[in-house]
Amino acid sequence: MSEAPAHRLDLGRRQRLGMIEAIWGEHKSASQIARILEETQAAGELALATRVSEDKAEAVQQDLAGSMDIHWHAQARCLTAGPLPAIDPTRGRVAVLSGGTSDLPVAAEARLALACHGIAAELVLDVGVAGLHRLLQQLPNLEQADVLIACAGMEGALPTVLAGLMPQPVIGVPVSVGYGVSAGGAAALQGMLASCAPGLSVVNIDNGYGAAMAAIRMLALRGAADRGRPSATPRC
Amino acid sequence: MSEAPAHRLDLGRRQRLGMIEAIWGEHKSASQIARILEETQAAGELALATRVSEDKAEAVQQDLAGSMDIHWHAQARCLTAGPLPAIDPTRGRVAVLSGGTSDLPVAAEARLALACHGIAAELVLDVGVAGLHRLLQQLPNLEQADVLIACAGMEGALPTVLAGLMPQPVIGVPVSVGYGVSAGGAAALQGMLASCAPGLSVVNIDNGYGAAMAAIRMLALRGAADRGRPSATPRC
Amino acid sequence: MSEAPAHRLDLGRRQRLGMIEAIWGEHKSASQIARILEETQAAGELALATRVSEDKAEAVQQDLAGSMDIHWHAQARCLTAGPLPAIDPTRGRVAVLSGGTSDLPVAAEARLALACHGIAAELVLDVGVAGLHRLLQQLPNLEQADVLIACAGMEGALPTVLAGLMPQPVIGVPVSVGYGVSAGGAAALQGMLASCAPGLSVVNIDNGYGAAMAAIRMLALRGAADRGRPSATPRC
Amino acid sequence: MSEAPAHRLDLGRRQRLGMIEAIWGEHKSASQIARILEETQAAGELALATRVSEDKAEAVQQDLAGSMDIHWHAQARCLTAGPLPAIDPTRGRVAVLSGGTSDLPVAAEARLALACHGIAAELVLDVGVAGLHRLLQQLPNLEQADVLIACAGMEGALPTVLAGLMPQPVIGVPVSVGYGVSAGGAAALQGMLASCAPGLSVVNIDNGYGAAMAAIRMLALRGAADRGRPSATPRC
Amino acid sequence: MSEAPAHRLDLGRRQRLGMIEAIWGEHKSASQIARILEETQAAGELALATRVSEDKAEAVQQDLAGSMDIHWHAQARCLTAGPLPAIDPTRGRVAVLSGGTSDLPVAAEARLALACHGIAAELVLDVGVAGLHRLLQQLPNLEQADVLIACAGMEGALPTVLAGLMPQPVIGVPVSVGYGVSAGGAAALQGMLASCAPGLSVVNIDNGYGAAMAAIRMLALRGAADRGRPSATPRC
Amino acid sequence: MSEAPAHRLDLGRRQRLGMIEAIWGEHKSASQIARILEETQAAGELALATRVSEDKAEAVQQDLAGSMDIHWHAQARCLTAGPLPAIDPTRGRVAVLSGGTSDLPVAAEARLALACHGIAAELVLDVGVAGLHRLLQQLPNLEQADVLIACAGMEGALPTVLAGLMPQPVIGVPVSVGYGVSAGGAAALQGMLASCAPGLSVVNIDNGYGAAMAAIRMLALRGAADRGRPSATPRC
Amino acid sequence: MSEAPAHRLDLGRRQRLGMIEAIWGEHKSASQIARILEETQAAGELALATRVSEDKAEAVQQDLAGSMDIHWHAQARCLTAGPLPAIDPTRGRVAVLSGGTSDLPVAAEARLALACHGIAAELVLDVGVAGLHRLLQQLPNLEQADVLIACAGMEGALPTVLAGLMPQPVIGVPVSVGYGVSAGGAAALQGMLASCAPGLSVVNIDNGYGAAMAAIRMLALRGAADRGRPSATPRC
Amino acid sequence: MSEAPAHRLDLGRRQRLGMIEAIWGEHKSASQIARILEETQAAGELALATRVSEDKAEAVQQDLAGSMDIHWHAQARCLTAGPLPAIDPTRGRVAVLSGGTSDLPVAAEARLALACHGIAAELVLDVGVAGLHRLLQQLPNLEQADVLIACAGMEGALPTVLAGLMPQPVIGVPVSVGYGVSAGGAAALQGMLASCAPGLSVVNIDNGYGAAMAAIRMLALRGAADRGRPSATPRC
Repeated sequence: MSEAPAHRLDLGRRQRLGMIEAIWGEHKSASQIARILEETQAAGELALATRVSEDKAEAVQQDLAGSMDIHWHAQARCLTAGPLPAIDPTRGRVAVLSGGTSDLPVAAEARLALACHGIAAELVLDVGVAGLHRLLQQLPNLEQADVLIACAGMEGALPTVLAGLMPQPVIGVPVSVGYGVSAGGAAALQGMLASCAPGLSVVNIDNGYGAAMAAIRMLALRGAADRGRPSATPRC
Repeated sequence: MSEAPAHRLDLGRRQRLGMIEAIWGEHKSASQIARILEETQAAGELALATRVSEDKAEAVQQDLAGSMDIHWHAQARCLTAGPLPAIDPTRGRVAVLSGGTSDLPVAAEARLALACHGIAAELVLDVGVAGLHRLLQQLPNLEQADVLIACAGMEGALPTVLAGLMPQPVIGVPVSVGYGVSAGGAAALQGMLASCAPGLSVVNIDNGYGAAMAAIRMLALRGAADRGRPSATPRC
Repeated sequence: MSEAPAHRLDLGRRQRLGMIEAIWGEHKSASQIARILEETQAAGELALATRVSEDKAEAVQQDLAGSMDIHWHAQARCLTAGPLPAIDPTRGRVAVLSGGTSDLPVAAEARLALACHGIAAELVLDVGVAGLHRLLQQLPNLEQADVLIACAGMEGALPTVLAGLMPQPVIGVPVSVGYGVSAGGAAALQGMLASCAPGLSVVNIDNGYGAAMAAIRMLALRGAADRGRPSATPRC
Repeated sequence: MSEAPAHRLDLGRRQRLGMIEAIWGEHKSASQIARILEETQAAGELALATRVSEDKAEAVQQDLAGSMDIHWHAQARCLTAGPLPAIDPTRGRVAVLSGGTSDLPVAAEARLALACHGIAAELVLDVGVAGLHRLLQQLPNLEQADVLIACAGMEGALPTVLAGLMPQPVIGVPVSVGYGVSAGGAAALQGMLASCAPGLSVVNIDNGYGAAMAAIRMLALRGAADRGRPSATPRC
Repeated sequence: MSEAPAHRLDLGRRQRLGMIEAIWGEHKSASQIARILEETQAAGELALATRVSEDKAEAVQQDLAGSMDIHWHAQARCLTAGPLPAIDPTRGRVAVLSGGTSDLPVAAEARLALACHGIAAELVLDVGVAGLHRLLQQLPNLEQADVLIACAGMEGALPTVLAGLMPQPVIGVPVSVGYGVSAGGAAALQGMLASCAPGLSVVNIDNGYGAAMAAIRMLALRGAADRGRPSATPRC
Repeated sequence: MSEAPAHRLDLGRRQRLGMIEAIWGEHKSASQIARILEETQAAGELALATRVSEDKAEAVQQDLAGSMDIHWHAQARCLTAGPLPAIDPTRGRVAVLSGGTSDLPVAAEARLALACHGIAAELVLDVGVAGLHRLLQQLPNLEQADVLIACAGMEGALPTVLAGLMPQPVIGVPVSVGYGVSAGGAAALQGMLASCAPGLSVVNIDNGYGAAMAAIRMLALRGAADRGRPSATPRC
Repeated sequence: MSEAPAHRLDLGRRQRLGMIEAIWGEHKSASQIARILEETQAAGELALATRVSEDKAEAVQQDLAGSMDIHWHAQARCLTAGPLPAIDPTRGRVAVLSGGTSDLPVAAEARLALACHGIAAELVLDVGVAGLHRLLQQLPNLEQADVLIACAGMEGALPTVLAGLMPQPVIGVPVSVGYGVSAGGAAALQGMLASCAPGLSVVNIDNGYGAAMAAIRMLALRGAADRGRPSATPRC
Repeated sequence: MSEAPAHRLDLGRRQRLGMIEAIWGEHKSASQIARILEETQAAGELALATRVSEDKAEAVQQDLAGSMDIHWHAQARCLTAGPLPAIDPTRGRVAVLSGGTSDLPVAAEARLALACHGIAAELVLDVGVAGLHRLLQQLPNLEQADVLIACAGMEGALPTVLAGLMPQPVIGVPVSVGYGVSAGGAAALQGMLASCAPGLSVVNIDNGYGAAMAAIRMLALRGAADRGRPSATPRC
């Protein structure tokens, strides 16, 4: 039997939704990723591959042998191919908070995904609620942000405390850091969904990319009255 | 032993967050709800009590014996005390979609919670993905909304399909309608969190109120450059 | 076949552990509870029955027809038979906190179980972390307590924030209040166990009685150098 | 103690059910697989071993040292021993769809298992519902199939949308691709079982082989009135 | 606020899929069901409402006050409105098996849903595998069926044994009968999905209707070469 | 449509396995139970129906209107029809232990099921491990038993401690008594399965009948060399 | 800080329970196992270590450098130190069945643990219920056994079918073989606990040793009237 | 994009809570740990890093190249940097018990965390309840302790039996040792939470550090009347 062709990209996503499609790297081989990057480049689109280990990133770079401008972002565990756009300060600002040092990869993925769309994001790390003063000291800084992304593992209480203090949209990202009942991030996820703070919304465990895309949808509301949105007419 | 006093309201929430505190009616007695309504009225604040059965609503009304302007909203299973504010069209529009008829109480709770803050919301019912044409026919209408709230039980695929078609913020609300694996809404919740559509965010099962509050946080971004936000300085 | 005799009390528990045995009322009939109360009274011991509904309490009182000094505690949903001991201030003080109004029955059960052993406990209600200022205002008051019992449903973040601020023993009691992922108290339980705050310990969902007994074990450490403990020699 | 003999094949399965027995390779050693292949060959039967890694496949081939016609199918992660039968177009056609590139191994296993029985199957990849136009474009093509097998990970909505559009039998195969709540395929499985689309049936996570066997049972209904079925008289 | 209109029927389902839409009665009020029945009748379509208790059925009948031909099917807990079509023996035969007496409501729902489409179905009850001879005695009878639907609670082993003996399509329906680990049907569901028998497919717990619809999709394959299928061109 | 006949008894079970079939009363109507009792009586067999509430038992007795010798066993929540056999002391002795008073219904069901087969069983109640002396005092008594059945809810530690002290077969029966993590008996079940005591075997939650049948299988080993067993030749 | 001494053996277990203590090898280092073997040998007791990988077994043998008679049993993944006792046919016979080839390690562990106590056990492999004739052919053979141990992964139906056919004690051992819902053995465990066959008892997943110990407890009942049991007087 | 700074220590924890912050080593790289140790040393604080493998410990030591006094504690899998304080016997004594040898790492982590605060702790190993005499022999020794920490995997019954015998505070630590239902420690956790022994409190699975911190909070109650506590005035 012949082997099957392996992918069918959704290159119309930017026009339809105002976002690029991310390549989920975890279950793909270096060769599969390299082929997708070639196709994306041929279409003139920036590529972002998430959840790519250092080894796999090197294999992709070797496979493509310098034919493309590829960068591996160590903290975010992501590959980008093509130049990142310049940051456009008129599109608003995002603050990405994390409870502890171990949440950094997820927070960095969110920041990078925003940068791929030209949006400024600041990392505010190690503000977990077991040492509450660390968060309270950041409040004046956080007032400047349009959207807050809060990444936390363990019991995941950071977004709850944050959403009780600040009026902006808060997106909770549970992180798969912990052990025992918090292993895999399930306790953090449930804690964020069960939150007594009003209007906190949540994405999947470790989904920094998804939180960034949710923020992009929200930021498009800024000055909605006087500026066009990406066309909402579906292409199907 | 003497009985304890039973509640301590968070009446500063409107100033801090731009939202009123909702009274979660399910685990409270009619008498507890009545006392809280009195206190809220004394503070000059509109009150919204969610998850109130018809029987409990009647008991609250009898307890208060006409001393207050109370209305029970049958579809939303909510009580309000005090006049709802006028709808302010400049604050934006929300569309609240539901997959099936049985999701109506949750969708209606979201619409009512928005109305309590003067925000317009339209219900778009029975657009579940098993009959996809029903959703596709609504797309031109949905383009007019600033934020989309999608309520669905069973497998909960509606927000995924929607977020793949439309660029606005999409808030998924799993609904505890179903049986077998979907009983209690867990399958819908997991389906929304696991969604392959970018930037879908999710609230707890049946949490129409929470989805509305998330929408209010987002709508405050409209015209953010030229209009004041509620003060973000916390009161603690 | 003849019916079996139905119970075998552990009346040596006070001598062995310094606590009375509680009668768990939920799965027992009024008649079973009445017979146990008679036996406890015959042994000269105070009786505490937890998780007794108002209807069942009335049936127990009718069954015993005034032969015993019985009191039903509505907030705590408990029955006591026999006079409560006087509060002994030298045994220390406990503060019992709750996140919301709906946690009151569990908090009240803990306070009553402490009162059954002559220990003072103060209820500090509605200090959930979604309105953080309410908790922060109570800190000077909480400094006076020897042990802190924190009851919370929903995401259960109160004990985590508390244990990050205060040095005393903190006992977390998850409460089965909530809906969706927090229904039954599982999210609160996991959040407390996963807490990033150091030295928080936890009891079963709704187990106000157990938290009180844990506090009694701890309070016996006060002045341990100069005062006798209950004998630790087991009776087996 | 002597070691036990290790297997007892079900070589009557073709006569009884019209299918060959598959050798589940994941928990077997290369040596165990090699012995079973020898026995199958001795019985004159085609052998299919599923879930065989590339390393294990090589070890099996070395063990058998060219004594047998063995082929490893990389995409499907399967070994076959003996020539595949010719495709018999009169037995009907199956379309095997997948939501994303990462679902390919499961889809390819289903196609190969069908080919082992002489049945034609077409792969239709990357038609996930987050880019709905990709699926809608395939509908004319899908009309030509007798049975539809839909493989999907993440939220697993593809079979639901498909079964709402097409009248043929739809077999959903959840795929263990994802992270957080979708890790291991549980969210996809529950979503397919909870589907609001009528008449969707489901097999175990990653069970491409099982979906193929279910399709074979269904295809035997074509021309049922005028053609014999495999004998249903059990051999026990 | 005005109340929302409550439903939007999918009346094109028969043309698109060859099936009627079932009304899921469990979470709907008698009044909601009555309104949907009126609308269905006005469209000239047969109506089937599942999971309707006897009390609710009577309330629906009173609401409609004899204006419609309604029948409540006690064993299946279903309402039908309008005359059932005549059984068409050329469309094939289905056997609906059950493990025990308590599975009867689910089996009867499947049989009724088939009857609503003119398809013959025979109930074969109490053939659970703990008394294997009962099933083995039925094998000659079962050979006459085109599709086998096997309903079972507890450990749910019946479909596995059946699919190992018979070559036809077997649809497993887990039943929410049991206690302890089998309460709610989860053990039966997992047992069927995990089955070692090849080609068994499964629907949601208690989903007799869904099994019937899956059977209808399969039966349409009979004589596929010489008879038209319902049009697969979607209407969206 | 005509209603289906509702049951097919396994009356050969005594000959095949040496046990009578129990009628599981929980999901059956009084009328269904009455019909089965009539059929059992006609076959000259003793009948045992488990999990029958007092109300349902009365309805069965009224339905049968004195035509049969029926007894409701309140502690065991069971119905028997026909005279119990005399206890045969040569078949061995069983001790049925329980951790607390609330476990009594399950322990009593086990004792009754043994009595239905002429086997002596003694109840040893309230020997939970929180007051270990109560169990240790019973050890001389327990030495006289051939098989030990240990029923326990909550953490379910009784069978573990018992199996560490005594050499006989120990059958653990988790009981659905508890709250929070022990609600429904899951914690007790897992504790028994995870036991560090060697050779403890376990049945389903609340399955007193099953434990009794397991004991009967074991007791048949007494004097196995010189006494016949029920024939093991299956009847299929 | 000084390191702690690492173990305290239960060498009185043979006298108390008639069994030797097994050393659970999975979480112990080769060095820890070697020290325990030395201590066991010094006490003149046979040692059995379960769940020992081939690598760890070699490390233990090297550590002990020929000072002891050690054997690694590949199929059972166990180490024994000291000579196995001769098989004593008067103690009865056990049959150990398995559903598939992959269950062999667990079945072999049970057989070895029995051999360590001088008890004969026969392996009956590959008799899973998907090819029912394989089991039915073994029934005359199985009639000769006193106790049946049935090991099965996937849906775990083998013990259920077996206990419906045979009157002896049946001990179900779920095996952690499978994928998707059966990964880790949970589906098999639940299926065995939920079994509709009377008197099946169950041990933990993969617990071949535990099943053997349960069988030893049962076999001691053979000829109980005329032969002494190990003393049941506990040593505490 | 520039990389983010990676940590923000909570160096005020000793003043606020009387404890040092532990560095959770599991998800941190050797380089991250080394940087935190440098920062801690610069602040003049003792550092404790938990869950550090031998390989990672060596890498940290190489990174710091002798610039710091670092010790790896093999049994506890922890790193300390800086000299441990002298043991202060006036602060009380803790006994750390374990059920089996495999629980040693968790027990040793608790003992080390106590030693980091100058508190004496004794390990009492291998006192699991399957050989109850081993625990009972230790009771006179345990009477000398102020607080009991009980570590147990499998079914986790040790803390329950202990808390029924002794009056001191008992902290249960579930251990992730086991297989099948006890894999990961979930069964032990649930068993401890569900305990029928009064006043047992619990920390997360494997959380030896957390149990030690809970003990430190409790020990501060000794002589509470006449000695100062760490200041409870929060720093926020």
